Amino acid sequence: MRVAIIGVGCTEFGELWDKSFRSIFLNAGLSALEDAEIRGKEVEAIYIGNMSGGKFIDQEHIAALIVDHAGLAEFGIPAIRIENADASGGSAFRQAYMAVASGIHEIVIAAGIEKVTDANDPMEILSTAVDQEWEKFVGANLPAIYAIIARLHMHRFGTNEEDLAMIAVKNHRNAVHNPKAQFRKEINLEDVMRSSYIAEPLKVLDCAPLCDGASAVILANEEVAKKICDTPIYIEACTQASDYFSIQNRKDITTLQAVVIASKEAYKIAGVEAKNVDVAEVHDSFTISELLAYEDLGFAKKGEGKKLIREGETEIGGKIPVNTSGGLKACGHAVGATGIRQIVDLVIQLRGEAGKRQVNAERALALNLGGSGATAVVSILSR
Amino acid sequence: MRVAIIGVGCTEFGELWDKSFRSIFLNAGLSALEDAEIRGKEVEAIYIGNMSGGKFIDQEHIAALIVDHAGLAEFGIPAIRIENADASGGSAFRQAYMAVASGIHEIVIAAGIEKVTDANDPMEILSTAVDQEWEKFVGANLPAIYAIIARLHMHRFGTNEEDLAMIAVKNHRNAVHNPKAQFRKEINLEDVMRSSYIAEPLKVLDCAPLCDGASAVILANEEVAKKICDTPIYIEACTQASDYFSIQNRKDITTLQAVVIASKEAYKIAGVEAKNVDVAEVHDSFTISELLAYEDLGFAKKGEGKKLIREGETEIGGKIPVNTSGGLKACGHAVGATGIRQIVDLVIQLRGEAGKRQVNAERALALNLGGSGATAVVSILSR
Repeated sequence: MRVAIIGVGCTEFGELWDKSFRSIFLNAGLSALEDAEIRGKEVEAIYIGNMSGGKFIDQEHIAALIVDHAGLAEFGIPAIRIENADASGGSAFRQAYMAVASGIHEIVIAAGIEKVTDANDPMEILSTAVDQEWEKFVGANLPAIYAIIARLHMHRFGTNEEDLAMIAVKNHRNAVHNPKAQFRKEINLEDVMRSSYIAEPLKVLDCAPLCDGASAVILANEEVAKKICDTPIYIEACTQASDYFSIQNRKDITTLQAVVIASKEAYKIAGVEAKNVDVAEVHDSFTISELLAYEDLGFAKKGEGKKLIREGETEIGGKIPVNTSGGLKACGHAVGATGIRQIVDLVIQLRGEAGKRQVNAERALALNLGGSGATAVVSILSR
Repeated sequence: MRVAIIGVGCTEFGELWDKSFRSIFLNAGLSALEDAEIRGKEVEAIYIGNMSGGKFIDQEHIAALIVDHAGLAEFGIPAIRIENADASGGSAFRQAYMAVASGIHEIVIAAGIEKVTDANDPMEILSTAVDQEWEKFVGANLPAIYAIIARLHMHRFGTNEEDLAMIAVKNHRNAVHNPKAQFRKEINLEDVMRSSYIAEPLKVLDCAPLCDGASAVILANEEVAKKICDTPIYIEACTQASDYFSIQNRKDITTLQAVVIASKEAYKIAGVEAKNVDVAEVHDSFTISELLAYEDLGFAKKGEGKKLIREGETEIGGKIPVNTSGGLKACGHAVGATGIRQIVDLVIQLRGEAGKRQVNAERALALNLGGSGATAVVSILSR
């Protein structure tokens, strides 16, 4: 059964010190219901992407908590939390999609949430996404792993630090016009190049900031969507793939194999090719991740991702605008919320409601990654 | 599409000090593949129930880790971790069921795993299943909450401590013949009644021990199942419901409303009534939970659960044998693994492979709870 998105909602992304985990979710969930013009009791199930309620706020059983706090407990609807590191949001979206596509449910919510600022060391917690015994144990946390990948990519293909810096500059420029973004502030190439190394060659301004935030989308089958929504956005495909967990086991660390597998399958299901994608939100947890995405999604050949950024093709107005929201880099990376936030932004683009960051798009793609790419979720949307 | 279970596997439940998280899973997963006589590469997706990899072993992104460690990374199959507290296993089973019932996949694995002994205070971690702000904050951890429920049930319906103790005695007696059980040892009524209070009226021997363990089942659609399996066990229904998260918001704490909703829906889908169930595995995290299950699943009227245990009706040989495996109480509660372990045990019963604990059964029911019952998953199986 064809599935449409009929409502979207998102909190501001940032350091939400004055808001609790539950109130953050409520904000996003209610916005989505309001946007869809439906009532909570029409929702049949809820899928929540959340990476580490346990470590960030000492609370598991997140999905049941949220159903209650959203005022839906009296209806008893099933609530399922999905954890696939920072691909939790994308994976939750995929399970929600499957629940409607299969005809099991008519209307469901897919949401993502993370409250990171209550924890002492959010990056340490994010690094529980990589192998604790084979990577983290020897000091390879997430930035270090992407630094290794970047180093080899530079060595092999002639990518340089300026190429990566340009991705950060572009994403900050896009975020200026995104009211939900954490950093609505332009930076220039020199700012990035002068920022301190976190893990050489990656600098502070190559890294996405971890932040608080929640996002929600409401999915319905085509029939229901047509009845209650003027601007349904269709999910043409939503696929997921896995890769070797630790990078030392991968055949080629300059390719994220899960992205290749998931995107090929998604293109096949949607009956399109990479060149048919008009706008994309990709997982730029580090600038190198966005560059890899260009190549592994098929927007550029392997090793030629740098050309896209050098020639401005992924800018707004370019051939394939990427991260018009500002991406994880400037919109902020609210971990479990990010995969859903990407979908929210693409829906806004496809509806033509993106204001100054609007691009002309009929078909959109989202790529959400877990950790160093052991999980990849690809979604293709169309209006 | 009708869905069958074609293979099951389970580790021993207990304090598995000499085994790591990953090796525990491997043991269960390989047993299930061997039992189904299929190869790993035939599996199209994997659903993992795990409550708190983050807090128990400092590792999130559990599903991708497991796919790799199981030797399946080269096939890139999607891996999804589900967390719904100690209903994680049941919820993972339900998502796997939906993935096959919908026709999206032909063969999938649903597994559950928890490694609790590496953590300092497993019960504190299990208590992240209840509300940290409204329950845990005031000292109400999981045993305390079930003690409050038990106290009111006793006051209102005349249930007494001996009734609860008899449930523990029954489950220990059953576990003697379960080679996977943590406590293969009979206890008598006096043992239970003399054991120390944990949270009055619940005593040490009213509480299920937390332990390590993993369990896995392989699901296939009917067509595939008939080709490769001589003894397919069918999933007639698999439902899930939610309740108010904190007990203070529930209308009546002596009823677990999520169990009532999920079981009614399951009976309806399967076209049966409570009286048609021949054997059940229910979530006896505390003896009171099993007593509530008798009533909320419809095996007895509200307040009359005590009659079933007093009259021996839930013993092996009784009208409706419950927890022939020994239940969480004596088989052990490996948290995220428990919901799948229940399915494994019911499949063994329905196949007629349960040896000395064999009952005569055509239809079986599993009830898996999250925390104090904010999540309930009910599955009905038949041969």
